[in-house]
Amino acid sequence: MVDVNSRIVGEVRVVGAGLLGASVGLGLRAKGVDVIVHDASPANLRLAIDYGAGRAARDTDNPTLIVVAVPPDVTAAVIAAELTAFPDALVTDVASVKAAPLAELLATGADVARYIGSHPLAGRERGGAISARADLFIGRPWVITPHGPARFGEVGVIEDLVLDLGAVPVTMTAEQHDSSVALVSHVPQVIASLLAARLNSAPESALSLAGQGLRDTTRIASSDPELWVQILGANSAEVVRILHAYREDLDAIVAALEAPDVAGARRAVAESLAAGNSGVSRIPGKHGQDRRFGQLVVMVDDKPGELARLLTEIGEAGVNMEDLRLEHSPGAQIGLAEISVLTEVEERLAAELEAGGWKIAGAWK
Amino acid sequence: MVDVNSRIVGEVRVVGAGLLGASVGLGLRAKGVDVIVHDASPANLRLAIDYGAGRAARDTDNPTLIVVAVPPDVTAAVIAAELTAFPDALVTDVASVKAAPLAELLATGADVARYIGSHPLAGRERGGAISARADLFIGRPWVITPHGPARFGEVGVIEDLVLDLGAVPVTMTAEQHDSSVALVSHVPQVIASLLAARLNSAPESALSLAGQGLRDTTRIASSDPELWVQILGANSAEVVRILHAYREDLDAIVAALEAPDVAGARRAVAESLAAGNSGVSRIPGKHGQDRRFGQLVVMVDDKPGELARLLTEIGEAGVNMEDLRLEHSPGAQIGLAEISVLTEVEERLAAELEAGGWKIAGAWK
Repeated sequence: MVDVNSRIVGEVRVVGAGLLGASVGLGLRAKGVDVIVHDASPANLRLAIDYGAGRAARDTDNPTLIVVAVPPDVTAAVIAAELTAFPDALVTDVASVKAAPLAELLATGADVARYIGSHPLAGRERGGAISARADLFIGRPWVITPHGPARFGEVGVIEDLVLDLGAVPVTMTAEQHDSSVALVSHVPQVIASLLAARLNSAPESALSLAGQGLRDTTRIASSDPELWVQILGANSAEVVRILHAYREDLDAIVAALEAPDVAGARRAVAESLAAGNSGVSRIPGKHGQDRRFGQLVVMVDDKPGELARLLTEIGEAGVNMEDLRLEHSPGAQIGLAEISVLTEVEERLAAELEAGGWKIAGAWK
Repeated sequence: MVDVNSRIVGEVRVVGAGLLGASVGLGLRAKGVDVIVHDASPANLRLAIDYGAGRAARDTDNPTLIVVAVPPDVTAAVIAAELTAFPDALVTDVASVKAAPLAELLATGADVARYIGSHPLAGRERGGAISARADLFIGRPWVITPHGPARFGEVGVIEDLVLDLGAVPVTMTAEQHDSSVALVSHVPQVIASLLAARLNSAPESALSLAGQGLRDTTRIASSDPELWVQILGANSAEVVRILHAYREDLDAIVAALEAPDVAGARRAVAESLAAGNSGVSRIPGKHGQDRRFGQLVVMVDDKPGELARLLTEIGEAGVNMEDLRLEHSPGAQIGLAEISVLTEVEERLAAELEAGGWKIAGAWK
């Protein structure tokens, strides 16, 4: 089936109807692609089909592309089975680790010339088809990891999949991918979980003092342990390498804090904190080095319709918000709307809002 | 001066015109209190006065209450000087650590019967009077740490200050306070800074894969090193105690990941992650155990006015939002508005929005 909207040509078979698989199905169907969805669990499969992620498999299926979206532990085995069952299909997967499944797959003797690994950097804390979204991948990086003498045209098919789903294709080796995600995803998960674990023995009075800093720092600690055991196990070498370096830095700051009045101790602590400043400034995006957006903080009364009135005025000013965050303390009569807009319109918007009677609590570029 | 709006009676002198001091001044002046503001730096002082945080000191000043809002390192010395200069005034401070300044103060031989320490759990990553806000403390806990035989009436004056500023008074000993904030604030700062420091040596291609997880986990790593060296130094014993326990957990997960196929290794990793799950669930508030609020995720076209239209309809439905978060990937044509509302109105609102043509991408209680 050729569809005017999709780049992908032919049927796409999605194996695994969890969050990622069902989101791939929803996204491709929105482009008019014929999506076959399959799951080892009949209940999961029914849910995904009801949800609109695709249709059930038929004996006559002849997919051009198969997307394997199963847990990391079984990814290689499922890829091997799909390569055998569909000898004309190209197979990719969406597992969060790439080198280990490939090595496992090579050990099975499968026809790996028809396999190209990939990994969308997208997800949510909540899993399952029920949390799936057609737009889950929009604007997110999707790493493609060709191995050996991958043919150009086949990488192109995976790129078409990625582009059909609104994601941004990025090509790396499996090893580059694994060391990158160890740093930006797997190690932060470990660090956040260990920090959150410290809260178990805390008195409630201490927890009642928690603010946004603790909430943000530990948010991802609510992720699914079962999935993460598999991810960390499959990428353990890279994760351990970074955790060793982290542990050295931790030892240094602990030593300095154990003797804070010794010469050089405060400097050591200050250098750790400054290294954190420079590290965080390297993260792209609105909290990092992306300086295209400025922030305006506007005070908003805590009653129905007030925020809508503010946003209506922003819309009437012809300004598009890149991001909006409402800060609102429980019980407070006033909220603060932090609005991200292009820096070139920020001053004009602030002036128009003030003229309209809004109080600007802060403005930054 | 007695003001019908304020609980505080008489003049309040604020020493230190940074973020906290200037915010105290703005908040009290909004209640009609006569606020004297002072800063060792004439430039800072002028800025704070221009900003409306208070008036300059006069020889005839006779404050009933003095709020010391200077860096932790000089807090005890400034409290001692204020106690001497104003023999009839009660003095409090807002430093993030409480036991060390008190011990220092006792060593000076000052009249500590007129001093009661306190600490508002409020702040921002950006400092200075320029970031001050009258509503900075609204709804936030403000810890009061009486020492020795503090007279009931004097604790009441500090409570009046806290209530005038919209904060919630919490009474603890200095030691309870310091161990609590070590856990919910100081250790998370160290952990986030060390994690962010790992990003300094990373290739840009790795950083380009960063998602919200890394951003949240490292956000507070952008805090001011100079201030944090003082905070960590003044509370080093409590911070070190927690970091030791953290390091034991880190060693355990590193050992398990170094030999992921050894019997029990995966279980050890899973238990670490599960301990993180239970720890994070203990944090009060919308991401923790506060189950009064449900979340609705609504798809919103990325064009001016669309979000306003959504919020207008929510207002017309008579529903008040507790919180709103706009998720929006750069370049995407669609945003997702995550709306927190009381669980009892969530289903009705979802039905009304769907009837109005909005797409609900998800709903949770």
